[in-house]
Amino acid sequence: MLENRHYETLAPLFNPKGIAVVGASESKYKIGYLQVQALIDGKFTGEIYPIHRTATEIAGLRCYPSVSEVEGEVDLAILCTSANQIEEGIIDCAKKGVKAVIIFAAGFSETGEEGIAQQQRLAMLARQHGIRIVGPNCVGLVNTSNGLIGTFSPAILMVPTDGKKGVGYVSQSGAFGVLTYMAAAQNGILFNYFVSTGNEMESEFADFIEYMIHDEQTQIITGYMEGARDPKRLLALAKEALKRKKPIVLMKTGRSEAGSQAAASHTGSLAGADNIYDAFFRQAAIVRADDYDDIISFSKLFLANKLPKGRNTVIVTSSGGRGINEADRCESLGLHVVPLSEETKAKIREDIPSYASATNPIDLTAAASVTNPELFLAPMKALTEDPDVHNIIFTEFPHNWTKEMPILQEFISLCEKSDKFVCVTTFEIEGMTYPPATKTLVEHGIPVISGSLNPIRALSKLVTYAEQYRGQFDEVAEQEIFLKQEIDALIAGQEMLSEAQAATVLQAYGIPTTNRVIAMDVEAAKAVSEQMGYPVVMKVDSAQIPHKTEADAIRLNLQNEAEVQQAFHEIMQNAKNYCPEAIINGISVQEMLGEGVEMIIGAQRDPLFGPVIMVGLGGIFVEIFKDVSFRVAPLSRKDAVDMLEELKGKALLHGARGKVKVDTEAIIDVLLRVSSLMMDHDQIEELDINPLIVYEKGVKAADAMMALKKVEENVVVGGLTDVQ
Amino acid sequence: MLENRHYETLAPLFNPKGIAVVGASESKYKIGYLQVQALIDGKFTGEIYPIHRTATEIAGLRCYPSVSEVEGEVDLAILCTSANQIEEGIIDCAKKGVKAVIIFAAGFSETGEEGIAQQQRLAMLARQHGIRIVGPNCVGLVNTSNGLIGTFSPAILMVPTDGKKGVGYVSQSGAFGVLTYMAAAQNGILFNYFVSTGNEMESEFADFIEYMIHDEQTQIITGYMEGARDPKRLLALAKEALKRKKPIVLMKTGRSEAGSQAAASHTGSLAGADNIYDAFFRQAAIVRADDYDDIISFSKLFLANKLPKGRNTVIVTSSGGRGINEADRCESLGLHVVPLSEETKAKIREDIPSYASATNPIDLTAAASVTNPELFLAPMKALTEDPDVHNIIFTEFPHNWTKEMPILQEFISLCEKSDKFVCVTTFEIEGMTYPPATKTLVEHGIPVISGSLNPIRALSKLVTYAEQYRGQFDEVAEQEIFLKQEIDALIAGQEMLSEAQAATVLQAYGIPTTNRVIAMDVEAAKAVSEQMGYPVVMKVDSAQIPHKTEADAIRLNLQNEAEVQQAFHEIMQNAKNYCPEAIINGISVQEMLGEGVEMIIGAQRDPLFGPVIMVGLGGIFVEIFKDVSFRVAPLSRKDAVDMLEELKGKALLHGARGKVKVDTEAIIDVLLRVSSLMMDHDQIEELDINPLIVYEKGVKAADAMMALKKVEENVVVGGLTDVQ
Repeated sequence: MLENRHYETLAPLFNPKGIAVVGASESKYKIGYLQVQALIDGKFTGEIYPIHRTATEIAGLRCYPSVSEVEGEVDLAILCTSANQIEEGIIDCAKKGVKAVIIFAAGFSETGEEGIAQQQRLAMLARQHGIRIVGPNCVGLVNTSNGLIGTFSPAILMVPTDGKKGVGYVSQSGAFGVLTYMAAAQNGILFNYFVSTGNEMESEFADFIEYMIHDEQTQIITGYMEGARDPKRLLALAKEALKRKKPIVLMKTGRSEAGSQAAASHTGSLAGADNIYDAFFRQAAIVRADDYDDIISFSKLFLANKLPKGRNTVIVTSSGGRGINEADRCESLGLHVVPLSEETKAKIREDIPSYASATNPIDLTAAASVTNPELFLAPMKALTEDPDVHNIIFTEFPHNWTKEMPILQEFISLCEKSDKFVCVTTFEIEGMTYPPATKTLVEHGIPVISGSLNPIRALSKLVTYAEQYRGQFDEVAEQEIFLKQEIDALIAGQEMLSEAQAATVLQAYGIPTTNRVIAMDVEAAKAVSEQMGYPVVMKVDSAQIPHKTEADAIRLNLQNEAEVQQAFHEIMQNAKNYCPEAIINGISVQEMLGEGVEMIIGAQRDPLFGPVIMVGLGGIFVEIFKDVSFRVAPLSRKDAVDMLEELKGKALLHGARGKVKVDTEAIIDVLLRVSSLMMDHDQIEELDINPLIVYEKGVKAADAMMALKKVEENVVVGGLTDVQ
Repeated sequence: MLENRHYETLAPLFNPKGIAVVGASESKYKIGYLQVQALIDGKFTGEIYPIHRTATEIAGLRCYPSVSEVEGEVDLAILCTSANQIEEGIIDCAKKGVKAVIIFAAGFSETGEEGIAQQQRLAMLARQHGIRIVGPNCVGLVNTSNGLIGTFSPAILMVPTDGKKGVGYVSQSGAFGVLTYMAAAQNGILFNYFVSTGNEMESEFADFIEYMIHDEQTQIITGYMEGARDPKRLLALAKEALKRKKPIVLMKTGRSEAGSQAAASHTGSLAGADNIYDAFFRQAAIVRADDYDDIISFSKLFLANKLPKGRNTVIVTSSGGRGINEADRCESLGLHVVPLSEETKAKIREDIPSYASATNPIDLTAAASVTNPELFLAPMKALTEDPDVHNIIFTEFPHNWTKEMPILQEFISLCEKSDKFVCVTTFEIEGMTYPPATKTLVEHGIPVISGSLNPIRALSKLVTYAEQYRGQFDEVAEQEIFLKQEIDALIAGQEMLSEAQAATVLQAYGIPTTNRVIAMDVEAAKAVSEQMGYPVVMKVDSAQIPHKTEADAIRLNLQNEAEVQQAFHEIMQNAKNYCPEAIINGISVQEMLGEGVEMIIGAQRDPLFGPVIMVGLGGIFVEIFKDVSFRVAPLSRKDAVDMLEELKGKALLHGARGKVKVDTEAIIDVLLRVSSLMMDHDQIEELDINPLIVYEKGVKAADAMMALKKVEENVVVGGLTDVQ
């Protein structure tokens, strides 16, 4: 069955020798007519076989009553028939040995349970016969290189099929797909492949990503995603794509979706679906596009075949206002509008008039765009020679430059010889044409993008992609499997662990925790405190009281026997009042930890992504500022490093406010161990280490909460009853 | 002289009876020709007098050798001549009694000192003769209502002068001005006034804002600003505009400008130019546009003549993906995509098929846009009846609705009868036409905006404007002037106050500070501590050591005489080591304050805005998260309330994490008192109260830093020398 889904089995979808159009029609207003005509107009390079029960000819092509009666080879069938005719269509295709089918019809899984069942049945049927399927309920599939316009979409049919290719596109939304296809074409980018995946009956989004990763013609893979089916597979594909320097650029909607569950842990309550997607995209080096025009702009930049070497960006403009505006955008999007070196400034000043500015942004004034175009050359030359400059944004390309002007040739030659990333921008006004000479720039691989947001946003993303490409992926750190059976036994049948039980699990994974002893009575508590040394901390230990502060069942900084005695009684009493039915294991007596930086490390098992690991600065930072960072387990060392790097308050780890620099290596180590723990033990649903106290050397988990998979009602829950 | 600059003196600029075009030309490639032709083509309703030394006729109009020789009335002269001919032009105009002049020529203040001097001389000349001037170095002025196309800009000349008016526009950038003018026209909005202010020789940006505030035709005032000349005046104008429900919408560049000075205080280092502008715009209820298309979208929404009643927003769409995408944008821009009431959902479900969604965003599926347009009506009706819904975004208006369809009439009638703010969106693809029926919508005052960012960003800003309009402005709180002379005496001749001196100033303004006594020797320190009660705090008191922690010259929580004695010596020693030349006033012995919420309140005298007040959460929050908020002094109570409301960590003031709710009234009181202090004492350059400890009841300034205007070198600086 696996071989059935190998990416090469999708080849007949994209490069069929013969296509049968089932449900071909002579009526110009039917999909069956539009589809046949689309293949003819697209100059499809293979054979086209209209299938119609009775007609002998449609659109000048010979008709066949069924697919199985076609004499020639048929790799692909496009079913233009309605939902109730799909089954017989597939059976007919199977008879002929057709390898791939596109189904437009709606009326399947989107209509409810019956439709879902029907869809599953058809998928099974297709798999039995080794048929790959696109759809149902989709707009179709296009390969602009061989004229396979496998769609009825009037908008796509309007778009001519010549243009700059190399961009593949897969969409889980028909509407966004068509929109993006059109907008890209108007921007001079013709997708080489376009796939609308529809209900994904048999093939899914990632299948097409995989196909395009292995396809030589595709240089960049783009798409619109509503949800990933199998993030692990997508991650593996993304790694392969990064290796091959093929960016995957996806627009993913649903950013504002609230977290789906009422979670017991902080981690759970912060791990909203979009936070995880966002983290996952970063982890997988998938470029997240903000909108369809972001996809187009990024593609334009990437097709320039040069990766930016860094974030240092210089703006060259003929409008001061525009220059400042672009500089603002650069800074807010993480590009550095660096000051120029004295040497570079001196070079520029030699050739520009005194009223022009040689600082970044370089403003050559309207004179440059109207009367003295040569003013642009000196700065361009100086910048391409400056090793500290990585990117040059030439803002608002002049309208009066023409193909024939020597200065244009000089400009192009400067760009071509340089390792700087050069991007040219123009105004974006509907109906206002691009400056004529920009066409020549594009022919020479210099990207031209209109607008002020689009080019800079895309450049910023390309710089990040370049960094990821240079960094590549890390191997996932293999952690020892610690006492797996013992832990399984400890957590079996429980829904929540007490703090002491959770600490035992952490210890088994080599995560340092505070010394603690469960005291069953006052005398034991005193003895333990004596042995441990004052001051001590005392807390109730009960799986049913995960929020000990709320229950007022925790006492810090106890200095002597008398305080221990009083604390013991108070905690017991408060715990019982708070939750009379709680099973209290005893009072946990713990060493009082010294001051350090408080962090939180947590994990949450997401239904789609599996275990997700979180790190944040503790206390107020997590509760009010939500300053946390996520990655999907298993973590590599680089993932853990990146997580800390993403914290806004990371300066606190590096000795801000006169404090010591703390042991970030130890934090990374805990993150990797928590990742292993979650990978090894499916039963653990949620985990908070809060706080994890971080010192100049080492860390200690001062408290821990662990929630397990809900057990069946009829399983008896074991545990101590009240021990006093 | 003041009357000279009254806004009514600008009337001849906009509504002249006769215009002289100085430097009129017969050569089609000269500005002097373009300008005459522009007035003719624009069908200017007054007289046009071309001025040319020798020609008798230009473009069919009678020519005059000089302005003063024209027989008819000339209110306005447009000088198409070059810089060196401007002076004689003004003199000639003065002779004739011309009231206003537009100067295109460059070559003045932008070229350096000589140009500045020349420009000032001409401004003086103009003022002497009561002539108002636009420019020089500008694109001109347009009034589309009377055909006064006072510009040579080829782009503007291309734009027809019919369209929806009511939007005035003023620009400090010629390029952005022309761009915005064109883009607005293409979006169906024709500016009634367009002014390019150029070098602002005589009239400035705010003059035109003021004129438009008093102009009946102008409903909304927009513009592009590089910098305000007089923020106080702009604030006063903004207040007047808000009263008249005329939004001022400005694009202001320079967001990323770094703070201009190396400041001694936290406040100073955080008060970057753009932070202040941003705060100022909010304070003045000026809408800050992100880009020129933001201006256009906001104008479209505002011209619908309905203000949104709140933030609750419902999206109605035929594309699930698009709906989710818009919902994301709404949430990220502060609009609430609220769940619908059961009642509303039930009403909607009655009339839509089961596969459509009655939750917000309401997805009616492609069926609604293709075959069943009536599906849109039921949700629209139910939503307009729901009191909890404030705004309805109808996303992606169908292409197949026509003017004649009864459903369109019903849709319009629903919108017109409702108090909901309805905004219709369409896709934004170059060359893709707006759906035909949207024209009818616009005729009925329903705004239609293309794109996914623009409509929602503008709606969010309009909601904020509506809130400001309903709230209006507060009177600035008058504070008593406290001991002005004593304070003046205290700070005279100093550059920096010691903490004790700064505390004295704060106390004089009724700001609670910690009890403190300056001890000159150890015995005094002990006696003071005894009297004050242990524990105490001790700090060096020296104007030259504002950063006491850095100097290790501060000791907290001293419990007894012995500790006080040791602390005294250590602090003295450390202070001397840290800054041997410091004048040490003694050791400040202070009460040790109880725990509370630490805040920072500060002030900074900005060269343009004058005193700027800052508030933030103290410690880490200000240093790492920069969670602060600014307003320009004098503050009203509402300003102070808004400042606290803007803090991300404001939850900490309202009893987050099980802590008590603290006394926000007391914080507001300190803000108002600091505002008065800064207004009363020009000498104070910077002030940090850091920390201000806030309790359940009351506040205390635990430390203060005050920097004064630099004194002249030859003034003798007084003060105690080392006292030990």
